[in-house]
Amino acid sequence: MTSALTIYTYDWVPSGKHGPRGYVRDIRLRWACEEAGLAYDVQSVPFKDRGPDHFAHQPFGQVPYLQDGDISIFESGACLLHLAKKSEALMPRDPKGEAETLEWTISALNSIEMVSVPWWFIGLSGADKNPLEQWMQSRLDRLHDVLATRDYLAADRFTVADIMMADALRVPKVLAATEKHPALRAYVDRILARPAFIKARADQIAHFAKAD
Amino acid sequence: MTSALTIYTYDWVPSGKHGPRGYVRDIRLRWACEEAGLAYDVQSVPFKDRGPDHFAHQPFGQVPYLQDGDISIFESGACLLHLAKKSEALMPRDPKGEAETLEWTISALNSIEMVSVPWWFIGLSGADKNPLEQWMQSRLDRLHDVLATRDYLAADRFTVADIMMADALRVPKVLAATEKHPALRAYVDRILARPAFIKARADQIAHFAKAD
Repeated sequence: MTSALTIYTYDWVPSGKHGPRGYVRDIRLRWACEEAGLAYDVQSVPFKDRGPDHFAHQPFGQVPYLQDGDISIFESGACLLHLAKKSEALMPRDPKGEAETLEWTISALNSIEMVSVPWWFIGLSGADKNPLEQWMQSRLDRLHDVLATRDYLAADRFTVADIMMADALRVPKVLAATEKHPALRAYVDRILARPAFIKARADQIAHFAKAD
Repeated sequence: MTSALTIYTYDWVPSGKHGPRGYVRDIRLRWACEEAGLAYDVQSVPFKDRGPDHFAHQPFGQVPYLQDGDISIFESGACLLHLAKKSEALMPRDPKGEAETLEWTISALNSIEMVSVPWWFIGLSGADKNPLEQWMQSRLDRLHDVLATRDYLAADRFTVADIMMADALRVPKVLAATEKHPALRAYVDRILARPAFIKARADQIAHFAKAD
């Protein structure tokens, strides 16, 4: 069967304790499709030799990208907002709920990941002092204030903003940085308990394992 | 006159060579409104004492945020995509053009700024070696490949994606890092020559100067 929606990810990524299996960002798109009951295929592009066709669809040579009929779209955040137009399960339809979903999806990308991803990257070097540490903690503090008073980021319900934010926070080193933020941990636990995430994660791990 | 749209920014920010006047992110919203001919007011919140009302609208205590009737929305990227729904001058109306505008707006936030902003921040310390240097250059290289073949990021025309990307790239230290990327510089020059940007920048500088 061919679905209208095809998620592109790598054919293989390293496994093991620090391998990204279970964390590659195609999981965000799988998760959204599972939440909404949208039919989708998963196709592979080579991890090791990224060719011109890959860069034509994803100019930075990353994954995922999404094919929806004749539309090709990259950036997991853009793909989530694109999918959200297809199903109310991913975003409410009233203008206020839509605006909240939009602002918190972008916030996960540009207020949290803009700090947490480079913070994580610099941390890989094992240096004693991370120049982004204070910035990272202040972002987590502010987000904690928000999540101490609500179960979901936007519109009092689950939305794609929660997919984005929970996926940004569940990165093991990032999660380890939230030891003083119990409401963040409770939020991540709550969002990751959703069956659609559990299926998406298992499917991703199985996808990469096929190529071992 | 009261407009439906109110852009909130600080009442004042430092001036001088390294002051952010002309670069505070409310400029993105002013610029979009100017491009689209949307009527808007600008209101101030204190730079020095950021109170609970500010955090209620912008949980990280930053600016801008936008009030649109009873909708309050933060994150400049979210505000731009929200405004883009109001005018075809900001985003085409066909699904393919809309998807391209969305992916490149998010790309400016999560593929470029996610590297360029922390790279810039770390550079402030004056350390000899920036741990994000290689990552930064590789992102600029890839973006240069794209902009070497087109005048605008999305849909063969100006969109909010160009506001976001040109504003991310025009930061002086970032622009200085593009010396091997002539197509990036030509792109920034081309986008910044637009009258709507020139007016938005002058208006922002005048706004902060009023409080000196």
